[in-house]
Amino acid sequence: MQNRRDFLKTGALAAAGLAVLGCDGFTPRRSGGPITMKFFPYELQLRHTFTVASYSRTVTPDVQVEISWEGVTGYGEASMPPYLGQSVESVCNFLSKVDLSQFKDPYCLEDILSYVDSLSEGDSAAKAAIDIALHDLVGKLIGQPWYRIWGLDPGKAPSTTFTIGIDTEEVVREKTLEALGKFNILKVKVGLDTDAQMIRAIRSVTDVPLAVDANQGWKDRSQALDEIQWLASEGVVMVEQPLPVSALNDTAWLTERSPLPIFADESIQRLADVPSMSGVFSGINIKLMKCTGMREGWRMAQMARALGMKVMIGCMTETSCGISAAAQLSPYVDFADLDGNLLISNDRFDGVKVVDGRLQLPDRPGIGVELI
Amino acid sequence: MQNRRDFLKTGALAAAGLAVLGCDGFTPRRSGGPITMKFFPYELQLRHTFTVASYSRTVTPDVQVEISWEGVTGYGEASMPPYLGQSVESVCNFLSKVDLSQFKDPYCLEDILSYVDSLSEGDSAAKAAIDIALHDLVGKLIGQPWYRIWGLDPGKAPSTTFTIGIDTEEVVREKTLEALGKFNILKVKVGLDTDAQMIRAIRSVTDVPLAVDANQGWKDRSQALDEIQWLASEGVVMVEQPLPVSALNDTAWLTERSPLPIFADESIQRLADVPSMSGVFSGINIKLMKCTGMREGWRMAQMARALGMKVMIGCMTETSCGISAAAQLSPYVDFADLDGNLLISNDRFDGVKVVDGRLQLPDRPGIGVELI
Repeated sequence: MQNRRDFLKTGALAAAGLAVLGCDGFTPRRSGGPITMKFFPYELQLRHTFTVASYSRTVTPDVQVEISWEGVTGYGEASMPPYLGQSVESVCNFLSKVDLSQFKDPYCLEDILSYVDSLSEGDSAAKAAIDIALHDLVGKLIGQPWYRIWGLDPGKAPSTTFTIGIDTEEVVREKTLEALGKFNILKVKVGLDTDAQMIRAIRSVTDVPLAVDANQGWKDRSQALDEIQWLASEGVVMVEQPLPVSALNDTAWLTERSPLPIFADESIQRLADVPSMSGVFSGINIKLMKCTGMREGWRMAQMARALGMKVMIGCMTETSCGISAAAQLSPYVDFADLDGNLLISNDRFDGVKVVDGRLQLPDRPGIGVELI
Repeated sequence: MQNRRDFLKTGALAAAGLAVLGCDGFTPRRSGGPITMKFFPYELQLRHTFTVASYSRTVTPDVQVEISWEGVTGYGEASMPPYLGQSVESVCNFLSKVDLSQFKDPYCLEDILSYVDSLSEGDSAAKAAIDIALHDLVGKLIGQPWYRIWGLDPGKAPSTTFTIGIDTEEVVREKTLEALGKFNILKVKVGLDTDAQMIRAIRSVTDVPLAVDANQGWKDRSQALDEIQWLASEGVVMVEQPLPVSALNDTAWLTERSPLPIFADESIQRLADVPSMSGVFSGINIKLMKCTGMREGWRMAQMARALGMKVMIGCMTETSCGISAAAQLSPYVDFADLDGNLLISNDRFDGVKVVDGRLQLPDRPGIGVELI
């Protein structure tokens, strides 16, 4: 589905020879056709049914975005797991409002992305799709991957966690054995009645490090501290969002006493949230679909470090497009949780790989993906 | 003066074919010779004697740095006005300790600059010299100016202030008339007995906007507020460092009531200082020689914005090397005070220009300078 309205609009502008906002006042690198955007829904097929207490699903809604300039195309995507409150309709509505033809070239990410962000309060996934596609495009135009533009060493990309879903002890053991050899660190959802059973099932077959995500599941700080102390003794190395978002004081109390670093997930969305989480959490989990994309994600990571906090990069169910975009900043983080592309059966892209458990960043410009 | 020790060391390593730390784990872009560094003192000759209460000077000590890799050279410099507590000797001592040969290529600015920063507590100007030279080198290797790598629009580079020195009314009028046509905003040192006389002398010949720098000169917050209200009525648009560094509470009181934005100068040095200045000042003045260079300066600017603060970019007496480096982030700032290269008679470089009062960023890669 082409964004015909914008296409026609930019075409008309170009035909009339009208001036467009200059991005580089002096010498245009290229003759400067309009920036064009296409987008279309692309339903992600899950390899395994995803089940939480309230529902099950076998697909994740997603919108693919392509932004082109002077014959070069950048890829982006918006992934909309239901709890984010965004949908194919809301994303397409938002993208239809975006007029990139007013910018002379795609290099001025500051201005373009400020404009995109100004169009609405929310729509973080739709904004991330544009941000990712523009980063891919600019990286390709410059001929460099973003890890290099950001000055990061791809050799320092960390291992990614891989989530072992809650299931019977036998299935958990099986899934764990399957994951061993492929992953060096596993992730488990906790804050449920199944905690001890899950951890013991995994520990019956391996002693690899574990990360746990409580998803606000513990209601009491003392109970949470007891659980975390036990988890630390079982080889768990980090905890995500132990207490409800509203329990900031209790979280600060817990972080001060916890033997493991405590990461904010539901408590953090965007850059402006970071300063107030300093002193409350040990670190933050950055997700491109929540923070509007790579530019703001990289800023969040740098601000967190400046505030003495740890950094983690996470994801939704995404194709290798979104995952490879997020992986560009993985050399800068303490933990990476970038297994979203491994959960789908209809990936459109070849991009970041997991080799011996570690993220291997593609040696390609932009976000490093190619259409399969 | 070549840094012979490092040169010999890297030469020996290369000859022995020993491994050096990998910066890009996968496919080296080039065959990978060692990164080499040269440096030499270069005394800056001031066009006019610089006089403050305590002393006069006609020169500023400076060290020029050149970092090369695979036949490409990046330029940097350290400028050491006496009050910074750094000298040609301290800078050369620091630079002699730096071993860049351990890095396989110059792209991993994160790792290289973290290593450089770890070598001592202070030495901000020496660190800035390396940072600037590496940015120039990497920009040239990538083929892009840093304003573009940072996603900024060079067409938005602001006017730079130009300082009118304290002098007799007649000389002030003369200097002001000379500056008109070349500059759109002038800067005056205040917090002295001469304040009213200076402002009136300038106002007798022009109504261009004025910036004022009090250099901690007001001792009392109520007196400062009175002065600022009068200055606002005289067309002053911003105030730097009105009160002593130690007077944080009084500064917060003043900022809350001031009709003009109040910028931190002496109160701020590096990234880690920024969060605590939020709520105290309206904005920060970033100087590369104080904050260790472009990477940290850009981070400070982004953090200040995220905290809702204004941003200003300043300088020391520098060649067009340091000034052009600082100017790369000028499209992102509210005020630029980048006149340091205009004050010397022996500039080594052609770089950023002032055209109709506004900074004109060179359309060249890296920091955009060429040896004259």
